[in-house]
Amino acid sequence: MSVTIEMIKELRAKTGSGMMDCKKALTESQGDMEKALVWLREKGISSADKKMTRITAEGIVDAYIHAGGRVGVLIEVNIETDFAAKNEDFRRMVRDIAMQVAAMAPRWVSKEDIPADELEKERDIIRNQALNEGKPEKIVDKIVDGRLAKFYQDSCLVEMPFIKDDSKTIGMLVKEMIAMIGENITIRRFVRFEMGEGLQKKEEDFAAEVLKQIK
Amino acid sequence: MSVTIEMIKELRAKTGSGMMDCKKALTESQGDMEKALVWLREKGISSADKKMTRITAEGIVDAYIHAGGRVGVLIEVNIETDFAAKNEDFRRMVRDIAMQVAAMAPRWVSKEDIPADELEKERDIIRNQALNEGKPEKIVDKIVDGRLAKFYQDSCLVEMPFIKDDSKTIGMLVKEMIAMIGENITIRRFVRFEMGEGLQKKEEDFAAEVLKQIK
Repeated sequence: MSVTIEMIKELRAKTGSGMMDCKKALTESQGDMEKALVWLREKGISSADKKMTRITAEGIVDAYIHAGGRVGVLIEVNIETDFAAKNEDFRRMVRDIAMQVAAMAPRWVSKEDIPADELEKERDIIRNQALNEGKPEKIVDKIVDGRLAKFYQDSCLVEMPFIKDDSKTIGMLVKEMIAMIGENITIRRFVRFEMGEGLQKKEEDFAAEVLKQIK
Repeated sequence: MSVTIEMIKELRAKTGSGMMDCKKALTESQGDMEKALVWLREKGISSADKKMTRITAEGIVDAYIHAGGRVGVLIEVNIETDFAAKNEDFRRMVRDIAMQVAAMAPRWVSKEDIPADELEKERDIIRNQALNEGKPEKIVDKIVDGRLAKFYQDSCLVEMPFIKDDSKTIGMLVKEMIAMIGENITIRRFVRFEMGEGLQKKEEDFAAEVLKQIK
């Protein structure tokens, strides 16, 4: 079966991948749309790493409001082209990530965003904890590394297990989308407001509540 | 006509005002619901100033996304009780204010939030401008005051004319709502993300675009 321009357009609309990639996927799959989708996906995964250095200057700003206005998240996720920014799968992922922020209250997007002094402070605390527990000095560094990994998982969005499928992290979720769409994607920034935080007198665990509802 | 508990409840549901205020409004209006609404409003306006010192620890977090994700706003507005936080007029006002932020891109909630050094810098610039224009030294202070008022109007949310009705400022809009509901209201904080700001190569005036659509 020959590859027509309509087929290329259809595959592009489905995946948001580039024209040339769609053409190649269809040619390699002898015009079989299903096979072309799989081909793009597999091919994409392997080239996602390379794509992760490309500039992302398009994208969307999305918001998620939970529980009638008790918690709100504003997020910006960038992608390479305006076309891909309109892709439904991309948008669904952005919404999922906004919900993740509402539920898990990360403090930073990635490890690189943790201020140096904050990280140093955390490392000192963990180190002293380990020493106070009577761990021998020679294995303390290993323990510190292990506990820092846990700290990253709790505080950095891309290191967190995805609440809807904890077999992958948010970072892996993004990487899969890069593979599928064929464009680099960057979670640029987010803010999370919890109604009355710092003001309120009674304590409420909104994070646990969001998690319960969407898990 | 006597005032029943059902009438008090109805008025409370309509306005979010306190039970005692609703009872008084109905009594003064001989049980006429329309008159009671007007009474509450008029009475409220005059007592709004007093209410503006009361603690607001309830409220909502709301978001407004414009143009399919090019601009987004997250906002927290506080009010005294959880009951009033669910009031439809209150929520409509919060959404209007979020749209105002999207359209006008204020930098701060109120004058009090401008950092001292930022204000000093602005004052120096304005002063030097006036002197450079050859204004006599003795009237320069007056000119500075006038231009600072303009600076406040452009950069502080509560000082801005409301885009849907520029006969009042956002601050006045809030005060009217305080009068109507009978509870203090505070715009606590907002953030505004413009897709790609600081990243993008081409310049786009999203603020003007939002304004055009909702005005």
